[in-house]
Amino acid sequence: MTKEALTKEFEAIVGADNVLTSETDRHTYSYDAAVLDSVMPALVVRPTTSEQLGKVTALCNENGLPLTVRGAGTNLSGGTIPHPGGVVVLTNGMSNILEINEEDMYAVVEPGVVTSKFAAAVAAKGLFYPPDPGSQTVSTIGGNVAENAGGLRGLKYGVTKDYVMGVDFWDVNGELIKTGSRTVKCVTGYNLAGLMVASEGTLGVFDKIILKLVPPPQAAKSMMAIFPSMKAASETVAAIIANKIVPATLEMMDNFTIRTVDNFRKAGLPTDAAALLLIEVDGHPAQVEDEAAKVEDICKQNGCTEIKVANDAAERDAVWQARRDALPALANLKPTCVLEDATVPRSQIPNMIAALEEISNKYDLTIGTFGHAGDGNLHPTILTDKRNKKEWERVEEAIEAIFERALAMGGTLSGEHGIGMAKSKFMIDETSKGTLEYARRMKSVLDPKGILNPGKIIG
Amino acid sequence: MTKEALTKEFEAIVGADNVLTSETDRHTYSYDAAVLDSVMPALVVRPTTSEQLGKVTALCNENGLPLTVRGAGTNLSGGTIPHPGGVVVLTNGMSNILEINEEDMYAVVEPGVVTSKFAAAVAAKGLFYPPDPGSQTVSTIGGNVAENAGGLRGLKYGVTKDYVMGVDFWDVNGELIKTGSRTVKCVTGYNLAGLMVASEGTLGVFDKIILKLVPPPQAAKSMMAIFPSMKAASETVAAIIANKIVPATLEMMDNFTIRTVDNFRKAGLPTDAAALLLIEVDGHPAQVEDEAAKVEDICKQNGCTEIKVANDAAERDAVWQARRDALPALANLKPTCVLEDATVPRSQIPNMIAALEEISNKYDLTIGTFGHAGDGNLHPTILTDKRNKKEWERVEEAIEAIFERALAMGGTLSGEHGIGMAKSKFMIDETSKGTLEYARRMKSVLDPKGILNPGKIIG
Repeated sequence: MTKEALTKEFEAIVGADNVLTSETDRHTYSYDAAVLDSVMPALVVRPTTSEQLGKVTALCNENGLPLTVRGAGTNLSGGTIPHPGGVVVLTNGMSNILEINEEDMYAVVEPGVVTSKFAAAVAAKGLFYPPDPGSQTVSTIGGNVAENAGGLRGLKYGVTKDYVMGVDFWDVNGELIKTGSRTVKCVTGYNLAGLMVASEGTLGVFDKIILKLVPPPQAAKSMMAIFPSMKAASETVAAIIANKIVPATLEMMDNFTIRTVDNFRKAGLPTDAAALLLIEVDGHPAQVEDEAAKVEDICKQNGCTEIKVANDAAERDAVWQARRDALPALANLKPTCVLEDATVPRSQIPNMIAALEEISNKYDLTIGTFGHAGDGNLHPTILTDKRNKKEWERVEEAIEAIFERALAMGGTLSGEHGIGMAKSKFMIDETSKGTLEYARRMKSVLDPKGILNPGKIIG
Repeated sequence: MTKEALTKEFEAIVGADNVLTSETDRHTYSYDAAVLDSVMPALVVRPTTSEQLGKVTALCNENGLPLTVRGAGTNLSGGTIPHPGGVVVLTNGMSNILEINEEDMYAVVEPGVVTSKFAAAVAAKGLFYPPDPGSQTVSTIGGNVAENAGGLRGLKYGVTKDYVMGVDFWDVNGELIKTGSRTVKCVTGYNLAGLMVASEGTLGVFDKIILKLVPPPQAAKSMMAIFPSMKAASETVAAIIANKIVPATLEMMDNFTIRTVDNFRKAGLPTDAAALLLIEVDGHPAQVEDEAAKVEDICKQNGCTEIKVANDAAERDAVWQARRDALPALANLKPTCVLEDATVPRSQIPNMIAALEEISNKYDLTIGTFGHAGDGNLHPTILTDKRNKKEWERVEEAIEAIFERALAMGGTLSGEHGIGMAKSKFMIDETSKGTLEYARRMKSVLDPKGILNPGKIIG
């Protein structure tokens, strides 16, 4: 079929207004938040109903057209970069919250719902949806599920995976697959909902997602602890967990990040601190008091020089705003910002910090380090300029060195950013040839023409 | 190859002592806890190392021999009933706890580790492994993962799925597949570990399992609340959850079950109570006090006539022993005991209780009802004699009626017992033709000769 004829077919399904063909429109959807080259799609299609989404999927398959579903394109591993000549399917036309069930504590949403809007709607009903990826103000639930997005609360509350009760999705033939349930327990058939999590749009096109909700914590206390070294801060992280305290959030920032954030938004951060821990404990008010006191003791035993406790909501917000500013502030400094997320068992955080310092020196690179220390999930952020070819070579070597060290510590290539196109070539280092073949066999039969987001995860 | 030649091949891998061929041995592994006909396997093989397990799997595949992995055979849906002429692979030769990591709160185990032994070993290190299926004193972790076993603590702590961080498994070619990680966050590749959960041995043979551990609750309080009707008790369950209290355990028993349990072990239960709720709240001591008081209030508001609070460990154990006695006590009454586990959203518990009473009357059957009311996961237990053909026909009709009513309430066929052989024909009622085809396509490419536990889940 010619491109014109195909365009007409798509228009017949979603309406002429919802098929974008101009160069500007196509350019808009040619890249995502990963540091990778952009790829122009042939068409951008915006279904507005479940039925349209199924028909669009089937039409792509019939014509062997590569199909990349895109929520907000905030992912950091190239998961939403289209395939040359392919179709980008936008989910922002399907952004309804279909149900928030207070009695049974679940919600049903379309894939294009924005994460923070959803969380707010849930909060308005007196419930809590914990996953809070850094991009939550624009990211979508569909994207969060496809990438298994993490966030600041992963330590205590888990990640997106832990809230997916069910997924309805379209297979390549345009058949609606139903998996999971509105019940808290369900073992009816294969755990395809679990398989959809982190599958980056390569095994099906999400139609509806059922999410678990929980009661909100009754109280919370946020603290900022100042340390004379990253070593002391990272040993404190390991000590808190080893003492069987599981804070809601346990974040770390190095001096470079502290100064950059303070410069970005005059936050009154201690710019001479070698390291900061940002900690929030939550739960029953008495538990919060106890845990906060214990955390304070452990910090002091590990060399903390000062702890500031947020006294009210404004102070608490300031703490978390500072943490959320880390990425935009760092990204502001240089033309190219590479945000890694190799993750280690949390007891290995001190070793990982040491390894990052070593790598930064060896490759002569500026690396700002912050992240979810409590999860073992640091975000070493390399500031560079991709046009500087010599430096970029060193960046690529440094990234490989980070992966190698994380794996040697029993860690993983990616804690929460996904494999996408950026890390697929490293998959073999963590898993095995057999593992990749198993995954490829599965993909080959579920998507025989290879139209679903080609090139992601398994290459 | 002749059976003799094959036996020799298996003996060469696992040693002559670990290949069982006698009729007695084969009979021992011909059935499980489901009410289904037994099937004699050709051979029973007991690998004692990871390498042996891989070779046994590959040998079965090369010879097109059906392979059913068996832990303790406690599953209730026929998931461990072998295929005619097939091989049963026992996991009790691989029952080592390989690692309990206190700092990083995870454990690595072989599939044959007994659940309660594992939980005790974890407790001895000051940590907590919450999943506690009814069969925990004999069931194995491998079986728990294959079935996604639930238990009494599902309400607050989730089920086996929520504790599986990673699985190493053998594919049919004898390749070791590695999925998941020792890190708390991991998105490296497809969530094959999630896919293994509830796959009932049909997609791979588990070699090692990485499990998440959590800090134990500091305090707990157990209560027994007496109600004048099942309606009042079930409305109380819904009211507790609607009040955003999530007890660790929230179980229900009807009068028939109460009397049967009390008769089984003189437990001093209130035999004239129409219904009992057994409730445990846990966590920080202050939270436990608050939640216990609120639960008491809600019970009273909903017609509870008496609440007994366990004053010490012995009284607490007595409460839970009574609940754990429910199944053996009921099973003692009649030759055949059918334990169902259709599950509904928890707000539907009062409707489900009414439906069960209706079904019991309509089909003139004795149904004892108890179970995980807080999860919406009741266990209506039909007491019968399978040899009584007329009554058995009514039992089968009653089971279908239970499924139909549960699905109509937005529920699921199975909360925690699995699909196995018992429920595979009902899968289509809950999912769709496309869903089954998607699952069958996946299975066909991952196990082309169909040797892995044939006939389970997808028929």
